[in-house]
Amino acid sequence: MSSNRSFATLSRRALLSAFAALPALSTLVPLSATAQAAAAAGDPLPSWNDTETRKAIVAFVERVTKPGSPDFVPEAERVATFDNDGTLWAEQPMYFQFLFAVDRVKILAPHHPEWKDKEPFASLLKGDMRRALAGGGESAVAQLLNATHTGMTNDEFLQIVRDWIGAAKHPVTGRLYTEMVYQPMLELVAYLRANAFKTFIVSGGGIEFMRAWTERVYGIPPENIVGSNAKVKFELLDGKPVLMRLPQAEFLDDGPGKPVGINEHIGRVPTAAFGNSDGDLQMLQYTMAGSGPRFALLVHHTDAEREWAYDRKSFIGHLDKALDEANAKGWTVADMKNDWKAIFPFGNK
Amino acid sequence: MSSNRSFATLSRRALLSAFAALPALSTLVPLSATAQAAAAAGDPLPSWNDTETRKAIVAFVERVTKPGSPDFVPEAERVATFDNDGTLWAEQPMYFQFLFAVDRVKILAPHHPEWKDKEPFASLLKGDMRRALAGGGESAVAQLLNATHTGMTNDEFLQIVRDWIGAAKHPVTGRLYTEMVYQPMLELVAYLRANAFKTFIVSGGGIEFMRAWTERVYGIPPENIVGSNAKVKFELLDGKPVLMRLPQAEFLDDGPGKPVGINEHIGRVPTAAFGNSDGDLQMLQYTMAGSGPRFALLVHHTDAEREWAYDRKSFIGHLDKALDEANAKGWTVADMKNDWKAIFPFGNK
Repeated sequence: MSSNRSFATLSRRALLSAFAALPALSTLVPLSATAQAAAAAGDPLPSWNDTETRKAIVAFVERVTKPGSPDFVPEAERVATFDNDGTLWAEQPMYFQFLFAVDRVKILAPHHPEWKDKEPFASLLKGDMRRALAGGGESAVAQLLNATHTGMTNDEFLQIVRDWIGAAKHPVTGRLYTEMVYQPMLELVAYLRANAFKTFIVSGGGIEFMRAWTERVYGIPPENIVGSNAKVKFELLDGKPVLMRLPQAEFLDDGPGKPVGINEHIGRVPTAAFGNSDGDLQMLQYTMAGSGPRFALLVHHTDAEREWAYDRKSFIGHLDKALDEANAKGWTVADMKNDWKAIFPFGNK
Repeated sequence: MSSNRSFATLSRRALLSAFAALPALSTLVPLSATAQAAAAAGDPLPSWNDTETRKAIVAFVERVTKPGSPDFVPEAERVATFDNDGTLWAEQPMYFQFLFAVDRVKILAPHHPEWKDKEPFASLLKGDMRRALAGGGESAVAQLLNATHTGMTNDEFLQIVRDWIGAAKHPVTGRLYTEMVYQPMLELVAYLRANAFKTFIVSGGGIEFMRAWTERVYGIPPENIVGSNAKVKFELLDGKPVLMRLPQAEFLDDGPGKPVGINEHIGRVPTAAFGNSDGDLQMLQYTMAGSGPRFALLVHHTDAEREWAYDRKSFIGHLDKALDEANAKGWTVADMKNDWKAIFPFGNK
């Protein structure tokens, strides 16, 4: 948690702008298969305690999927959107995509001798993240992302992310990042899919960074990923068509950008939306404003022992206005400590 | 055909930029159901003559769907992308979305007395499309699109298009625009879907203009539409979340933009791609550069009697470089006159 403060001077928006460029893929266990097996075994949500939260989820799904029910939603219109960082996988002590960028700077440093004297790279290479980002703000993040997420073809970037995510370890747990996913949410994704929901990720993270591993880990295919992105340009490189990643943000899929991204990619108001921070507020507002039955849920990080506990004062996963609105409007809030029987597939932090 | 010349001074790109803002929906017969019924009856492509073109299509589909075949493509990776104007529905004497814009100008004119003296509106209202667009080029088209496709919520725009497309008639045939779809292509879309392909539209036309009717007419849902778009902004209007359409182009899904749009929305290289003009060239190049078996087809408008005949010299559906490349590289070219037994579901032009 202390590392949060290191990034206190960096705006979340600036950081996400930087993320607009990324893709990644490769772990060992097809975790979603585990969840799907559990669902097939009878209890679709074995890692959820039998609390009001679980009851609200199940009641909603039964209500919209029961033929003849006044709230019945046709299969084609069943859309569930999930934020990723802090909702499907962890985001502490720092967004994992940022840690990827830092690792890339270290790998690329030998090809950039000028970085020794140039911020934010100089401080990053000395291991001083705070100093690296303190002075630069958006500019520092943009430089970091441009240097690590652009200047190559999209295919090359996907491979870089796949290689990284197949090997890099989380600084606290020592686990692969793709193991740092929430078992109850894997079950929820599978449960909704078993009920004919189309499941989408709608994240401030990079669309390609996610596509590199989301199909394997969540069972969510590339065409169901909505995220931030760098500008991409079609080119013929030695006669071969490629998509080049340019050092320029194209779309920021965060906050008010989420409904825009949802409309652009899906063209339907979600039936159900799941998030964990103020960056998800507009997605939840947009979802709940749709006609007919709608469902909104916030994952509230309340378990300092098994995971992390943070909300209103945290820079990462800042949850303040959205929590107030959830309470005022009766949206469902999942209290990790009380509602979740398990946290990660491997256990706890 | 003569009306093509009226738009000779207008660049296709400028026109499409203007289209970046549109949506529409409503006809009588679920045409795709007809095609699906035919497919179910045994012959999946009854409106295709038994020529090399049909044989090439069927051979490709059988090759990639046969389990154990070295060219087998898993269902999750089977993606077919279709251009819309001139590939799935007609585009003469002018892109239908442009005719929609002209109709909107007439409807909106009473609220814009200033249009009487302001181009391109003044000439349009006098029925002189040539003069309306001759002087202005991109600016005239942009003004036309901004005035007719933006300044309202996305939902309002969808309803406007639905109302229009449910009633407006094609200037030559007197048919609803949604009847001006190609029966052989409806069958092809259904045939590919029956073989577990995910079918997408990738068009220079407006994404919302298409979403208003493509699910009903082609069986292609909103989340499978890739198109040009105006900038859209999330706002709270009297406390209600809406997406406002702004008078600013966001994305032009044409030419080199098509592979970019495909990657952004689908994240996979298509297995098969279908187009009819130089605006589809890069989509076909991008598709054929993918690893493993790929298929590219151009619809060549060769039937002046039953439809329209045009290619290298036409402004609408300009087909020149793509035809050369198809011939040079052995891509499949569907000759409408010789390969198609029928043109429209209702018959011929």
